[in-house]
Amino acid sequence: MSGEAIVLASASPRRRELLTAAGFAVTAQPAEVDETPLPGELPAAYVARLARAKAFAVAARAEDMVLGADTTVVVEGDILGKPANDAEAGAMLRRLSGRGHQVLTGVCLRRGERCLAGVETTEVWFDPLSEAEIAAYVASGEPRDKAGAYAIQGRAARFIPRINGSYSNVVGLPLATVWRLWRALEMS
Amino acid sequence: MSGEAIVLASASPRRRELLTAAGFAVTAQPAEVDETPLPGELPAAYVARLARAKAFAVAARAEDMVLGADTTVVVEGDILGKPANDAEAGAMLRRLSGRGHQVLTGVCLRRGERCLAGVETTEVWFDPLSEAEIAAYVASGEPRDKAGAYAIQGRAARFIPRINGSYSNVVGLPLATVWRLWRALEMS
Repeated sequence: MSGEAIVLASASPRRRELLTAAGFAVTAQPAEVDETPLPGELPAAYVARLARAKAFAVAARAEDMVLGADTTVVVEGDILGKPANDAEAGAMLRRLSGRGHQVLTGVCLRRGERCLAGVETTEVWFDPLSEAEIAAYVASGEPRDKAGAYAIQGRAARFIPRINGSYSNVVGLPLATVWRLWRALEMS
Repeated sequence: MSGEAIVLASASPRRRELLTAAGFAVTAQPAEVDETPLPGELPAAYVARLARAKAFAVAARAEDMVLGADTTVVVEGDILGKPANDAEAGAMLRRLSGRGHQVLTGVCLRRGERCLAGVETTEVWFDPLSEAEIAAYVASGEPRDKAGAYAIQGRAARFIPRINGSYSNVVGLPLATVWRLWRALEMS
């Protein structure tokens, strides 16, 4: 079967892989948007705003389904971005060690001028990490370009005993939410 | 980095992929064991017994870390095996639709005659499925060789808004449990 055609307003290879594995036929079209948070903006409002901005930043035909998404990692209310270097990656992993944090993704599915949107939150727990485990994980290079300095689909899976919520959301795109929005937009 | 060497007593390509992605160096050695449940055997006892049988069924050196595992899907106390045909796959998906079920994996990590074991349970929720969605999913062929007639890492991800527990457990191997057992066995 061929799969539903979707325009992904993102250059993320991980989002593309998730959609492809879930049976969508993906065309990727990177969106250029200013990702600076507004003063005092909460994480949920921030990812919702960026998802919408990305969905409307790409050129599309009136009938195209266009998906914008933005993911962020939050611990104790603080947003963790991508680590600037290995020392910062280690510091982020020390903050995540032995506790829960949240991964939030804003999604906006657009057709023409209409857009249905949502924000999905998944709780993620890390086992306590030893300094040797942190050093080995940082040395693997995996934390380098990842928000929160980890990839649940990679080596970090061995540190994560439990999540509560959507798994694909933690990778970068809540697929069941996308599919719910898709059916709602198609019916409307 | 090279990764911890592990002997996987299973022919499952999915378990092999999970371990490789989590940084282990895997040697697969299929184990031949009788998978018939004992009369009245509960799912957790069943997967624990098979995991242990598999770990001890393969030839290994005294220093090798050998992993046995067995996964089952349980809904309302009933074990769902692999569907015999497309009609049975559809019937299983109708049972999973719009509700939660459990995925249980027994794991046994063995070195020489010693074995540390555990059973991991993850709760998985399906959105309500339409007959059109079930028909399209069965037609994709994905349910055919899967316990419970679905693959969370494939097209079914769009139907699953939430899990509570280990994600890799639902794919077939709870990686954080394996890593906990590994460190405990290494220290003992």
